[in-house]
Amino acid sequence: MSRIRLGMVGGGKDAFIGAVHRIASRIDGEFELVAGALSSTPERARDSGVALGLDPDRSYGSFEEMAEAEAAREDGVEAVAIVTPNHMHAAPAIAFLKRGIHVICDKPLTATMEQAEELAAAVAGSEALFILTHNYTGYPMVRQAREMVARGDLGTLRVVQVEYAQDWLTEASESKQAEWRTDPARTGAGGSIGDIGTHALNLACFVTGLTLDALAADLQSFVPGRPVDDNANMLLRFGGGARGMLWCSQVAPGNENALRLRVYGETGGLEWAQEEPNHLWYTPFGEAKRLLTRGGAGASAAAAAASRTPGGHPEGYLEGFANIYLGAAQAIRAARDGSRAEVLDLLPGIDAGMTGMRFIAAAIRSSKANAAWVEP
Amino acid sequence: MSRIRLGMVGGGKDAFIGAVHRIASRIDGEFELVAGALSSTPERARDSGVALGLDPDRSYGSFEEMAEAEAAREDGVEAVAIVTPNHMHAAPAIAFLKRGIHVICDKPLTATMEQAEELAAAVAGSEALFILTHNYTGYPMVRQAREMVARGDLGTLRVVQVEYAQDWLTEASESKQAEWRTDPARTGAGGSIGDIGTHALNLACFVTGLTLDALAADLQSFVPGRPVDDNANMLLRFGGGARGMLWCSQVAPGNENALRLRVYGETGGLEWAQEEPNHLWYTPFGEAKRLLTRGGAGASAAAAAASRTPGGHPEGYLEGFANIYLGAAQAIRAARDGSRAEVLDLLPGIDAGMTGMRFIAAAIRSSKANAAWVEP
Amino acid sequence: MSRIRLGMVGGGKDAFIGAVHRIASRIDGEFELVAGALSSTPERARDSGVALGLDPDRSYGSFEEMAEAEAAREDGVEAVAIVTPNHMHAAPAIAFLKRGIHVICDKPLTATMEQAEELAAAVAGSEALFILTHNYTGYPMVRQAREMVARGDLGTLRVVQVEYAQDWLTEASESKQAEWRTDPARTGAGGSIGDIGTHALNLACFVTGLTLDALAADLQSFVPGRPVDDNANMLLRFGGGARGMLWCSQVAPGNENALRLRVYGETGGLEWAQEEPNHLWYTPFGEAKRLLTRGGAGASAAAAAASRTPGGHPEGYLEGFANIYLGAAQAIRAARDGSRAEVLDLLPGIDAGMTGMRFIAAAIRSSKANAAWVEP
Amino acid sequence: MSRIRLGMVGGGKDAFIGAVHRIASRIDGEFELVAGALSSTPERARDSGVALGLDPDRSYGSFEEMAEAEAAREDGVEAVAIVTPNHMHAAPAIAFLKRGIHVICDKPLTATMEQAEELAAAVAGSEALFILTHNYTGYPMVRQAREMVARGDLGTLRVVQVEYAQDWLTEASESKQAEWRTDPARTGAGGSIGDIGTHALNLACFVTGLTLDALAADLQSFVPGRPVDDNANMLLRFGGGARGMLWCSQVAPGNENALRLRVYGETGGLEWAQEEPNHLWYTPFGEAKRLLTRGGAGASAAAAAASRTPGGHPEGYLEGFANIYLGAAQAIRAARDGSRAEVLDLLPGIDAGMTGMRFIAAAIRSSKANAAWVEP
Repeated sequence: MSRIRLGMVGGGKDAFIGAVHRIASRIDGEFELVAGALSSTPERARDSGVALGLDPDRSYGSFEEMAEAEAAREDGVEAVAIVTPNHMHAAPAIAFLKRGIHVICDKPLTATMEQAEELAAAVAGSEALFILTHNYTGYPMVRQAREMVARGDLGTLRVVQVEYAQDWLTEASESKQAEWRTDPARTGAGGSIGDIGTHALNLACFVTGLTLDALAADLQSFVPGRPVDDNANMLLRFGGGARGMLWCSQVAPGNENALRLRVYGETGGLEWAQEEPNHLWYTPFGEAKRLLTRGGAGASAAAAAASRTPGGHPEGYLEGFANIYLGAAQAIRAARDGSRAEVLDLLPGIDAGMTGMRFIAAAIRSSKANAAWVEP
Repeated sequence: MSRIRLGMVGGGKDAFIGAVHRIASRIDGEFELVAGALSSTPERARDSGVALGLDPDRSYGSFEEMAEAEAAREDGVEAVAIVTPNHMHAAPAIAFLKRGIHVICDKPLTATMEQAEELAAAVAGSEALFILTHNYTGYPMVRQAREMVARGDLGTLRVVQVEYAQDWLTEASESKQAEWRTDPARTGAGGSIGDIGTHALNLACFVTGLTLDALAADLQSFVPGRPVDDNANMLLRFGGGARGMLWCSQVAPGNENALRLRVYGETGGLEWAQEEPNHLWYTPFGEAKRLLTRGGAGASAAAAAASRTPGGHPEGYLEGFANIYLGAAQAIRAARDGSRAEVLDLLPGIDAGMTGMRFIAAAIRSSKANAAWVEP
Repeated sequence: MSRIRLGMVGGGKDAFIGAVHRIASRIDGEFELVAGALSSTPERARDSGVALGLDPDRSYGSFEEMAEAEAAREDGVEAVAIVTPNHMHAAPAIAFLKRGIHVICDKPLTATMEQAEELAAAVAGSEALFILTHNYTGYPMVRQAREMVARGDLGTLRVVQVEYAQDWLTEASESKQAEWRTDPARTGAGGSIGDIGTHALNLACFVTGLTLDALAADLQSFVPGRPVDDNANMLLRFGGGARGMLWCSQVAPGNENALRLRVYGETGGLEWAQEEPNHLWYTPFGEAKRLLTRGGAGASAAAAAASRTPGGHPEGYLEGFANIYLGAAQAIRAARDGSRAEVLDLLPGIDAGMTGMRFIAAAIRSSKANAAWVEP
Repeated sequence: MSRIRLGMVGGGKDAFIGAVHRIASRIDGEFELVAGALSSTPERARDSGVALGLDPDRSYGSFEEMAEAEAAREDGVEAVAIVTPNHMHAAPAIAFLKRGIHVICDKPLTATMEQAEELAAAVAGSEALFILTHNYTGYPMVRQAREMVARGDLGTLRVVQVEYAQDWLTEASESKQAEWRTDPARTGAGGSIGDIGTHALNLACFVTGLTLDALAADLQSFVPGRPVDDNANMLLRFGGGARGMLWCSQVAPGNENALRLRVYGETGGLEWAQEEPNHLWYTPFGEAKRLLTRGGAGASAAAAAASRTPGGHPEGYLEGFANIYLGAAQAIRAARDGSRAEVLDLLPGIDAGMTGMRFIAAAIRSSKANAAWVEP
């Protein structure tokens, strides 16, 4: 079975998320990286291409050049991963979608709502797939949690508590990662809410199947001079009557990537934390709490389908990310035959992206209105 | 050193918190229970007195009778513990305070603001002590956390996340405990916010030394027909600029008494959970997280002063509660000499009680106004 | 119900375990400390008596004096707690047993086998009760574990892993506690094996109901000049075919009182740790692991009978210890009526003490024979 | 940088460890699987080759055929992964080593000591590399632990406790994995001691740098009719005076892959568990315990060099395994230039393999001699 030919936009030297996408694309052997526009600086792009072993002819100075050239090749890329800062998502995504090339794009969708809408239109107008790497949905126990909620193990949902805490921006920082993520021109109007708050919301919605009806947000920029939020507290109201809260922070010392979801319904509760992703705590009301392990006796079909190792041999962030790529590969292979892969039901796409953009906008609007309720 | 003569109002058969107070009063051998009005039903009161070994002459049918009789005895009670439902706190407390008898009262302060104000006036007008059993402040590692914040280990505080989750009211219940705690006539207007939300707020304020400037609350009564809230989500704004959230719930399956506080400042973070009270997690920003244990190498003077066993021999809820009684004993002995014990700085009293009552009222007011900001 | 009159031998100023016994005796209000020979130095004994509020006439300079005087009083002590170093257990215990006074004695039984045999004879010859404070058997979840094994939840047992690790003797120490516990004249021939190894073995046997058939022990004294072992590794063979290991150490940095038991049978496994005593992990083979909590949905009758607070309000070391005293009180009250309390089945006594002494002797014998198998 | 051409012996359909090796070889993009003898049944071998996308010409019916053909090709494999049952390790390894092809071989080394010695001779006689996948040494925090011990953070070592517990063989099983792993003809004389006990020993030696001087082992086959051990308890004596124990079990319900190492020295302790591999607990004696996280503030150079994601984004079993492959790639590239890669100091090879074989033999010899001390 030949590999899917993959290109990459962004992800040159010192980039963090580009390397993650590359590993994720390799884990199941479904993709082969064959082309790239790895940096916005052409020279740097070429150097990065060499370091990654790309054919120099296919290491491009810009995404436009790449899109044009690759679309013209018989053996051109079938899919492209977009791993640039947020303000550089829409343009390349649109360029490739237009040419019928599938897009796997990092989150949040774009830096601005205008970009988001243009991109949404491009997705609607293309036959190519658009997949957004809200990668936490790829964790096996997250998929199991979704399955358990869907089949009614918790009864009607009442309470959703979700949070994503980090500490790396506790002080002003000039690292490459910190720099663009706190620059509104590149990251967008949201700081922590865009970078990690969207992940938290996406996770909550993915697992619960609920839609967010309204939020009331109180945003802060604790570090002096920081032009975007670095902490956010929110009240949430979901369709169907469930209520909850969302906390995201990049200034909480002692937290690395503490994404955590707790969901409670009429008949049971579920708790999951990204830093211990192989575990899912389940309490049927009135019974003892159970530790469901990926690969263990309590693992469901959804978890098993997303697992590569037996229980007790932990899978991690990269395998969860790889499940997005694996799903993308299945969907791309199906698309070759003109069919739609079922796995697309599990993969975040343009809708999840637009939900995230509306969430960012709503949070900012609410916070400016002193945490008034706002519909996203 | 002779024991302090203690009386009790409430706490008859089947009561939960009365037994806790009695154990707490015995642990350090500072008190001797010698009188009681243990039930609102005189016969039941007398039976309970017999079961507890009280002199039948000092097992009273009502608190009024008890207050009068004990005040008249040379060997009458020096202090009284009030462990009745909330609506029955103020009247007995006032009766004893008037007679110069110290009062140790369960929380929340009262069922209504009117009662609270009457009680506050009585406290102001009496030389007797009034101590409110916000017992979680008695845990050694909570006192250490307060000490660490006060001495600046965390720098200026930014974020306070506090929660208290239970599951015992997930379904409608007719247990004795559930019954009065969900009856506004006895418990007051607040359900979960009064019963456990006040504990959460008290813990947050005790540790951080901050005052709550404003809250925005979204209260729910998930169980059909329940006349008080059983879940509450709140945004918090503290003096000095710190922001936070408070969640309390009695309908979160899998949670027993999950009171948890997380505090983050410019230079460090602290995390503590009531169900593992001997541990305090401390992260100085930029260093590895440390597990401070009660009695271990990282324990402070404040923790040591409140400990009875070496590290690794866990102390629990009853010892934390006993620290309130131990402090009360020290304060009462000092009061005998006309002096003020320093430990009173650590003991919740009428101010903490009024703070709790204003918190309940504010939360209800805010929630009725669609989670508008309200000053408590 | 009047309190049982209790005396104490040892437990003066600076003693650790005496204070623990006193608290444990007070928690349920069953005992009143009325007499003591609190130190081997008469003056010190008297001072300690004053500090504890004893009637000066009943604060004795020696246990002999105390035994004689108290036996002669109409209101003399009904029971005595012996909390001296090991070499001073047998003589006072025998003195009180002879006079029909119940004995609650700290562990290990004695310093030497000769003392142990004399004491055993005295117990056999007395109608008074002899209770040994292997206090970890008092933890509710330990009693539940025993109940679960007994009723067959694990099937036939196969593997027993037990350990008790500390670090307080990692370096040579001259603290009062360290001093006598590393002096063979006072502590006996065993160091860590006597002080904590006996607890580990007792816990394993209590929970499993198994008897130890043979052991092979490798003892070490890592700290230069220490005359007793501070670390021990052992292989164990139990009646019925179960096998296991026992590790005890006082030189394992990072361990406070890490007593931990794991038991595996044909159909399930149980895991318990003293530092989280309110939890018991249970895995029925082929099902998800369950977290049984004291007071929670999975708590058994045995756990409930030994509990004072609801689930999630942790009980600790002192409450576990108090369960030994509570049982002693029940047994003493029954003995007054000439009957035998059922709770004695749960209370360690002279048999558990002799088992411990034979264990110490066997471990030393085995280690001297290069870890040969030895029957204890 | 072109990929290293990799072949595989074993690892056809339904195999567990073959798939793991393939993923591990792909994660860093250093290898390309181009040939295989994937099953001992030629037809099955060919089908598996097709499924994996191998060129049918390079999907061989036997390893002999493959070795010969690949050695003859200009573009033949440079390295081969051997993932067959234990009795089929030596022959293919020797066949490839003879032809100068590097070998990456699963553990334990072989089924018999004779095979091991033949293989050792072949390794000695070849210029090709031989790497044994004791994969747990690839975990970043394991490498950090080794570095910390080596630089003296713990002082002279005293105590080593290591264990590897599973439960999947609690009952008789006829799964493919269970079948060969309990068949002495294929797995060798050791059951649990070979399959997982060798991992435990290897981990202990890798981290501590100590050599095992002697062991005393008590082996059991708890499941009726099982011809190999499924549980083993051992005493250990290391060079330099450290002592320890090793427990391995495949019949401990509730344990998935509970490999755990604890090391204590004169000045500190370290604790690590495979199921939470991103954490390393470190206690400098007399200070608070620290949670060192992969990628966090306490991570060392050794951990950083073996990491792909930031702290709090967990890496797992596959990344640890991939670190063996990454090291192999570095060593192979260096070997092309005739130099020796420094990373070989971290990679288990024939010596680790022989240590494991001697360990298995010694454990069996000791157990037959009633747990007598035996030098491995």
